[in-house]
Amino acid sequence: MSLYSFDKSMEAYRRAMAVMPAGISGNKNPAFAVPGSFPYFAEKGEGCYYWDVDGNKFIDYLCGYGPIVLGHHHPKIDEAARRQAELGSSFNHPTLRTVELAEKMVDLIDIADWACFGRNGSDVTTFLIQVARQHTKRSKILFARGAYHGSHPWCTPGHGGVIDEDKQHVRTFTWNDATELEDKVKACDGDVAGIMLTPYHHPAFNDSVMPAEGFMDDVRRICDENGIVFILDDVRAGFRLHMGGSHCYFGYTPDLSCFCKAIANGYSISAAVGKEEFKTAASKVFFTGTFYTSAVEIAAALACLKTLEEEKAIEKMMRLGRMLQDGLQERAEAHGLQITLSGPPTIPYMSFANETHFKRSQVFSGNAARRGIILHPHHNWFLSAAHEEEDIQQTLIVADECFAVVKEQFGG
Amino acid sequence: MSLYSFDKSMEAYRRAMAVMPAGISGNKNPAFAVPGSFPYFAEKGEGCYYWDVDGNKFIDYLCGYGPIVLGHHHPKIDEAARRQAELGSSFNHPTLRTVELAEKMVDLIDIADWACFGRNGSDVTTFLIQVARQHTKRSKILFARGAYHGSHPWCTPGHGGVIDEDKQHVRTFTWNDATELEDKVKACDGDVAGIMLTPYHHPAFNDSVMPAEGFMDDVRRICDENGIVFILDDVRAGFRLHMGGSHCYFGYTPDLSCFCKAIANGYSISAAVGKEEFKTAASKVFFTGTFYTSAVEIAAALACLKTLEEEKAIEKMMRLGRMLQDGLQERAEAHGLQITLSGPPTIPYMSFANETHFKRSQVFSGNAARRGIILHPHHNWFLSAAHEEEDIQQTLIVADECFAVVKEQFGG
Repeated sequence: MSLYSFDKSMEAYRRAMAVMPAGISGNKNPAFAVPGSFPYFAEKGEGCYYWDVDGNKFIDYLCGYGPIVLGHHHPKIDEAARRQAELGSSFNHPTLRTVELAEKMVDLIDIADWACFGRNGSDVTTFLIQVARQHTKRSKILFARGAYHGSHPWCTPGHGGVIDEDKQHVRTFTWNDATELEDKVKACDGDVAGIMLTPYHHPAFNDSVMPAEGFMDDVRRICDENGIVFILDDVRAGFRLHMGGSHCYFGYTPDLSCFCKAIANGYSISAAVGKEEFKTAASKVFFTGTFYTSAVEIAAALACLKTLEEEKAIEKMMRLGRMLQDGLQERAEAHGLQITLSGPPTIPYMSFANETHFKRSQVFSGNAARRGIILHPHHNWFLSAAHEEEDIQQTLIVADECFAVVKEQFGG
Repeated sequence: MSLYSFDKSMEAYRRAMAVMPAGISGNKNPAFAVPGSFPYFAEKGEGCYYWDVDGNKFIDYLCGYGPIVLGHHHPKIDEAARRQAELGSSFNHPTLRTVELAEKMVDLIDIADWACFGRNGSDVTTFLIQVARQHTKRSKILFARGAYHGSHPWCTPGHGGVIDEDKQHVRTFTWNDATELEDKVKACDGDVAGIMLTPYHHPAFNDSVMPAEGFMDDVRRICDENGIVFILDDVRAGFRLHMGGSHCYFGYTPDLSCFCKAIANGYSISAAVGKEEFKTAASKVFFTGTFYTSAVEIAAALACLKTLEEEKAIEKMMRLGRMLQDGLQERAEAHGLQITLSGPPTIPYMSFANETHFKRSQVFSGNAARRGIILHPHHNWFLSAAHEEEDIQQTLIVADECFAVVKEQFGG
């Protein structure tokens, strides 16, 4: 087959550059990767496939950066959204869907005695640090160096428009280093409100790292001994590891948690949950937005959670994710290439050994994209329940060709 | 007719209290008003009407707190959203809809040389203060005392979970007082990045106030003389005063502006726009979210802006809003009651003279709600293009009864 080209994407990108800052803002700008090797604009999606504006078809392992957990344009989820849209969505009050979703979250998530809803991941990560601050009457928030907790000023990885005071009460520590964490807590002299962690460490530009044996027990102990709130940021991993929240997959117990991405298969909604003792603090934070009660997204979330359970979607994604990870490992070895596959099977991350500046990753993923497979060079991938064995097989055939290109350009 | 009761709403509220902080969070909690006189949960909407879970029908003058500018469940907007949903919405890339909407904003809004999109109003107000800080390399933001610019920590009217540093570089001044504004700027000693203003002053719990003669000229001069960015927060008023942005209605020129509410008739999207000279700064702020490029809401916004123009919706809302304001004034006077109607006809605010703690407003609006008309006691109202003359007439008949109740309870 001839390799894909992206002429219409490039043309649209030039149009976008004229009327938008940087053309495409934030994490969805493919210029990060391999200019000319990725599409810039999507046209339509169906299941685990999508088509760009040039008509190229892709097997999608980025899934809209996470939300597409059941596949693009999923009939059950879109039907639930459509039915709600016919009743209306944006009212002066919530609808019963809001209560039903809160009840569903309390039912699903062991630590959830209450739930409330925003639109973006950042809405709920910021809300939960406010809940911790309100509950403890303290200021400081600790999180693991390199972790992404959203784009709000207190946690953004960017520097533009950020002032010192935005992060004045934020401290970071090394993932899995309980000693450093405890030292940082001591250095804060009783002023730590919360420790925010992702369920496992999944920074961009680095291998994923699971919680080390005993680390989360140490975090729990440090929180209990010091009256600190243990906040889980399950925005990225939520509902791809365990329907009860990713902490159930690993077996530990945070105080508060939040979800977004996979909760509604692409509809814009996020959720915060917590234990009973934090409900009063949560009620005192002014958490609101014009669209926070919009019913269409909430109806979609209800349908998505139900479908994930009914179809045992996580089980399926785990099985296919393992097949992908094993197959990649095997083929890389056959080419004499050393790769590392980290992260759980449903959220894999691949890196090359002896790598500088992601050159091998870029050549690999750029070539994969031009052959119809979307595998991000320095961000984790996502499986969906719409992927089937033949998609994984096709992916491995393409990966084999791409490993050959890497081998040819870089040697062993 | 017998007055509405809200038994099912109350029952659902008790359910909500069990699983959500405060049952209903933020500004959509009707307990603020007259407990027992307002519905707590909506069921469906059509045009300018909606029904609550008890089956009560209302003429809606709150319009979901603004977004419903063309009427609930508008066929053209919902059809555009549905068509896009069939192609998919949440991708690894934007769709061409994003570029088309940016081009549309640049075309409509005189000061817009670029546009970008978030989900909530707070997403874009916070983004624009970051753009101002990035552009000027300064920290301080000034806004008018009592103005609402969102629920993020730097501007929230709440106290829960807010630390001193969140507002350390925020200053307020009295609306329409250019002397105080200039003094505050001087006191900041060259460190003011931006002045954020709503197009006119529309605080909750107070009459709306138009820009005084010369005030906005003074703001523009103060900004120009001191290298400060003039930021308009058109989230609430946008597309209800002028299709070119509310500054065109009044005749002044900000540097940056933002929109939300009425831009997509209830779909969750917000927009930031600005002059060319701020495009570089805008591109340097990390402005992103998983759903910022979701196509359904963007398709809805394109359809909404087109329909607002084609149907000359603002003109119609102005005419009916004036009819409502004049009719209320006339009927209040007939009862010997003194009321003030402030705000533009499309976004009216009504208050009673000699009022303490909004007692008259609460009795008036509670009685109106129990007679099928939603008129908020201490927040501005919103007209939509789905309101017709007979709705205004019906509203005035009910208002007449409610003025009589106020007169009976409070005297003159």
